[in-house]
This record gives sequence, structure tokens and C-alpha cells, in this order.
Amino acid sequence: MNPLVTALEGSTIRALHARRRPTSIDLGLGQPTLPPTVEYFERATRWVAEHGCPYSTNAGDVALREAIASHYAYPALDVAANVCVTTGSQEAVYVALKTVLDPQRDELLVVEPAFPIYGKIAQLEGIAVRKVSMGAAGGFAFDPERILEAIGPATRVVVVCSPCNPTGKVIGDAAVRRIAQALLDRPGPPVYVLHDEIYREQTYVEDAGEFAKHYPYTLAINSLSKSNSLTGLRLGWVISPADVSAEIVKAHGWVTSCASTFGQRVALEIFRDGALGEHTAWYRAQRDAVIPLARASGLDFIEPEGAFYLCLRAGVADSKAFCFELLEREDVVAVPGRLFDASFEGWVRTSFVGPLADIREGFARIAEMSALAAAAT
Amino acid sequence: MNPLVTALEGSTIRALHARRRPTSIDLGLGQPTLPPTVEYFERATRWVAEHGCPYSTNAGDVALREAIASHYAYPALDVAANVCVTTGSQEAVYVALKTVLDPQRDELLVVEPAFPIYGKIAQLEGIAVRKVSMGAAGGFAFDPERILEAIGPATRVVVVCSPCNPTGKVIGDAAVRRIAQALLDRPGPPVYVLHDEIYREQTYVEDAGEFAKHYPYTLAINSLSKSNSLTGLRLGWVISPADVSAEIVKAHGWVTSCASTFGQRVALEIFRDGALGEHTAWYRAQRDAVIPLARASGLDFIEPEGAFYLCLRAGVADSKAFCFELLEREDVVAVPGRLFDASFEGWVRTSFVGPLADIREGFARIAEMSALAAAAT
Repeated sequence: MNPLVTALEGSTIRALHARRRPTSIDLGLGQPTLPPTVEYFERATRWVAEHGCPYSTNAGDVALREAIASHYAYPALDVAANVCVTTGSQEAVYVALKTVLDPQRDELLVVEPAFPIYGKIAQLEGIAVRKVSMGAAGGFAFDPERILEAIGPATRVVVVCSPCNPTGKVIGDAAVRRIAQALLDRPGPPVYVLHDEIYREQTYVEDAGEFAKHYPYTLAINSLSKSNSLTGLRLGWVISPADVSAEIVKAHGWVTSCASTFGQRVALEIFRDGALGEHTAWYRAQRDAVIPLARASGLDFIEPEGAFYLCLRAGVADSKAFCFELLEREDVVAVPGRLFDASFEGWVRTSFVGPLADIREGFARIAEMSALAAAAT
Repeated sequence: MNPLVTALEGSTIRALHARRRPTSIDLGLGQPTLPPTVEYFERATRWVAEHGCPYSTNAGDVALREAIASHYAYPALDVAANVCVTTGSQEAVYVALKTVLDPQRDELLVVEPAFPIYGKIAQLEGIAVRKVSMGAAGGFAFDPERILEAIGPATRVVVVCSPCNPTGKVIGDAAVRRIAQALLDRPGPPVYVLHDEIYREQTYVEDAGEFAKHYPYTLAINSLSKSNSLTGLRLGWVISPADVSAEIVKAHGWVTSCASTFGQRVALEIFRDGALGEHTAWYRAQRDAVIPLARASGLDFIEPEGAFYLCLRAGVADSKAFCFELLEREDVVAVPGRLFDASFEGWVRTSFVGPLADIREGFARIAEMSALAAAAT
């Protein structure tokens, strides 16, 4: 067997969820609870009744690729040739990293705290990984100077997940411009920025930065999963320079052939209706309501600028042990901070996609367990 | 960039199709033309209205995995733990080969003629490939002795696509038993057989062999694409020993996370209705009708035992040049044999999913071009 596969550990998040009880307050969710708009499925079904359900081209239906390209209208990345439609953003990240990085020579730089998939994919592909932590001192805000300093001679891709899972921080436009300019000024082959924008429609600040607006060597990743409550549709995409995109399409073609034709039709209907932001107002209201609850818990927390997570500082030495005990004793699911970054140890990630009463009660129980842990040491 | 990606050539089949005209007789199709049953999409849409469209577990919905496992009821491979649901059979082949083969040590053996994906995936993963040709002398029938002789010390997976794309040959039960017994008797680590059964519901002979019935180290691949005219649904699976399956699920989880929840619901409805064979009778009738047309062409041909292809011997030195000229001059799309095996040079693959009148006319034009080519040499 392939040692790169067998060496991969199982997911701690899934291990936690496997122990969840029917009574549990689940603040561990990584997906929306709002129902999706069923009408898009009905329209796509009518399309299938007329056209069947044939393969699309490897890169995806050209009408959808055009709709995606013109919706974002990123300079120099705004035509169908820049878009590859994939099986969710997971496959988009997978084929983008696999294509752009040569495991024999290149290195990936992950800006942390970050969702663990980037490092895990690199591990699976035998690609070296460097990490740069944004750190508690700056409140986990994206720091362009730290990111630039961390870029080594072999770094060919920098991953930025903004709005950030887990911290909810959003990189600002000025920070993006600073990084873009420094990378453009750098001699040698380009350093690509993989900007995972999957929480783009859950942004609560005004000056959010987008690499693709300022930097031509951007791999912009997105999907319908979080914006439209369609995690199970597995419909994502990567927008990239045309020469890179052509290579990504080749890799994608051999990995999955093409994204679901049905899913692509749902996506086209959503783009044509301009419905990517159909749930944004709900998330904004939820975020505004959850901040006072976090404050009432008495714990330090990070005010979410985006995404649907709120991180609390439990102040414990072992956040993984804490979260398993929290579930065992207090019946609350939360995700250990250390999964996202060594410097995020002591924190827990909660999501605010559920009912506010549950969130209030969950926060209270986390605060109580945290106080007990502090008293015990 | 990753040299394993950039070194991959574009698809000749796609290049041919790109030159197709509205008037072309297209015998190059690799997918059904029958419409799918729309009711399954309607039922899945009603399910989404009730349950939303959340992620499934990485391996797939357990009810679907159980339905698949018990439908085939392969000995020792008959529970949910043996099944990983994937984005079509393409991803099933991809993650199965990626998981089971160590690129540093192991070798893949491909039984040819065969659809090129197995070798291309190995190339993308840096896995060494050995090929064994079934050869014209035996009418391209699967020859267990030739296959066994070709297994080298580093061979860890043998790929058998039966019913075969392109030849339409089906491996018999006796041949499967012979190979299974020889592999079981072999000392050392197991040699897995990847049996691509995607054309299983288009089988026209009685004694078709299935490796998973006789050999525990089988990776059985299938999907709804060909059986139910659902190529665009991207819903496939791999059935494998539980220890291998657990590793395949890990790789699959990082490559695509999970298959479409909507697609999985369509699949569950199809399995519950026992509708995998809903189109089999049509293909059987089509196959029976197309054989006299092939005979009338005057060309040598392979009588299809399965799948929906009929291969004709054009008798030319360069089947690729022949097929481009055939399209240019005679307005017929057919696929060059050399894409499937060096020994299949001179042959062309046609598919019989279209109208019989088109097939008759297409065969006549291929025969005419073939005669002209023979006269010219």
C-alpha cells in the first residue's frame, strides 16, 4: 500500500462527532443548518428531463464557467478558460496543489490557524509544508509581514483561508495589496497564492481583501457549500491563470473526469439568479447575536469578521483532552484549537449555525469546564 | 508545476470530438444515448426538500453502502465497510490505485486492449506500468495464462476491464477461477485485481466471470454511468477488502471529501427499485441488430459479448491518421484502436448507442475508406 496514505491519521473532528449523543449541544458543525433552496433542484431536474444527464467537458459546462468568471470579474482571470469546476472545494484545493507543486522541489506555506486540509493534502502528495502562525499577540489577524518573511526559496504556493476557518478573521484589502506587491517585486518564478474563499458570502467587515483582485498568480477557490447550504452537492471551482488552469483541468480529468452535470445545472441557476448571497443576511444577524453571548461567557474570544465560527479561549493546556471531556461531562461538541495551529492550543472552535439558545447554553458549559480546569491546576 | 501533470498528453478522443460537425455520424460516443429515468431525480429532490443537502460521511451514506454490498453479495466483501462511494468510477479507480500502490516499489499491470485511464492515472501518480496484450491471434479474448505470465515480482495490482472497453470481450468464469487460484497459490504479498465492471449491465453472454466472486483481493469498480444513463451524475463505488477500504476512504476523503449527497440519494432509489438493469434489454436488442450490420460491412470485426462497442478492423497502418481522415472526408467519428493497445493498431472502435441507420451508414463509410487506404498502399 501507499505509505503516504496509510500514514494519514484519522480525523479528530470525526472522532468527536462519533461520540455525540442525541442530547448533545453540537457547536462542532462545519456546515450550514439553513435549508437550501429546493427550487434549484427542481429546475435542474426539469433540465435533466429534457437533456438527460451526460458528461460535461472535464473543465465543466462552458456556460457555468462563463457565469463564474464574469460574476467575480477578477482582472485577467475573467473568462471561462480561467475556471475549472470541481467536486466541491476539496477537489479544487486537491488538484490545484497537485498541479502547481512539484513534490521533488517545491514547498507549500500554510498561513495558520487554518483548517487542516491543506497540510493533509500536501502530506498525501509528499509535498513539504512550512507553516506560519499569525499568533495570539496580534489577535490572530492576518499579518502581511509575517507571511512575507515566512516565504522560503522553495515556497511556490501560499495558502490563505480568508474568511478564516477557524478564527473568523478576514484579511484586509491593504494586507492583500502589500503581499501582492511584494510577491510581484520578487525575482524568480512566481509564488502562487491559493486563496480559499469558501466563506466569502459570510463576510461582516467592509475592507475584505481578495488576492485575485490584485495578484495575477492567484488560485481562487470557492464553492456553493457554505453560501447556499449545499455542502452535499459537491460543487466547487478554482479560478486561476489560463496556463495553470489548463494543467489543473488535465489533473482534474484523470482524478474525477468532471463535476456532476446535475450539480453544475443547480450552480448555473444560482449564478443566473444572482443568489450566492441568499443567506448572507441571516449569518450577519446570527453573528451580531452571538457576540453578546460570547461576552457573557466571560471567556476571551475572537470577534468573527467572517465565516460562521466563534473561537473561545478555554485557557487549557490540552484542548483535545478538554473537548473530549467537554463532550463526556457537559454534552457539548466543540473543536480543539490545536487542530488548526500549535499556537492555537488552549482555544476551542464553536460554530454559530445552530439555535441561539443552544449556543448560549454551550458557551456557559464551556466556561464552567474551563473554570474547573483552571481551578484544578 | 508538477512534471507528472504537465507531461500528460491531451486526449485524442476529445481532439477528435472537437472537430465533429453537426452533420457527423458519431460512432465515437462513450456514453449512453437513452434518457435516464427522471423519477429518481424527482424523488431525490423531495428528499432534499425534507433533509437539506448535507455532507455524507467520507465513505458515503451507510444505507447506500449496505444496498450496494448486499446487491452484489460478493463473498467476504458484502458489508458496508467494503464499500466506498466515489465521484464516478473515475475517482474510484483513481483512489483505489493511489491507495494500494506504492509508487516507490510497486507496479501496475494493465490487461490490454483497455481504456487508457488506468495507465494515465499511474503516470500521474508516478507508478510504473506493465502491459499485457491479449492479441489478435486469440481474437482479443481474455487469456488467463498470458495474464499470469505477465505478473512480475513488483506487480501489486492487475487491471481487468470486463466487459471490455474497447473490444466488448467478457472474461469467462473459468478464466477468473484460474487466475484467482493461481494468485492465491502465489507466495508473498497479495496481488490485487482491479476489476472494472462498469459495463456489467451490458453483458450478452452467460458465463461472465467476476473476480470478487472468487478472489478476496479484488477491487471491484462500478457506477451508474452506463447502466442507468447517468454519466453526468458522477456516482460510482469501489468494493474492496475492509482493511484496504478503510485506507481508500482516507485517500478519497482528502481528494473529494465525499460523493454528492443528491447523487447518492438517486443511487439509493435505483438500488431499492432493483433498477440497475433497466436498460439491459435495449442494449441486448441493439447488439443483436448491429452484428449483421458489421457483417454487411465486409470488414473483420469483434462480436461484442458485452459493453456497447463494436470494433472493426480497418486494416490500416495508422489508425489515428485514419480516424482523423475519416472524420474529415467521410464525416464519421470513430476511435483509433492504437489508443487502447499497440497491438490494436489498425482497428477502430465504434459505439452502438445511436440509431441503427447511422451505424449502418457509418460502417459503410469506414469500409469504403478502408478499401481506399488498402488500394493506396
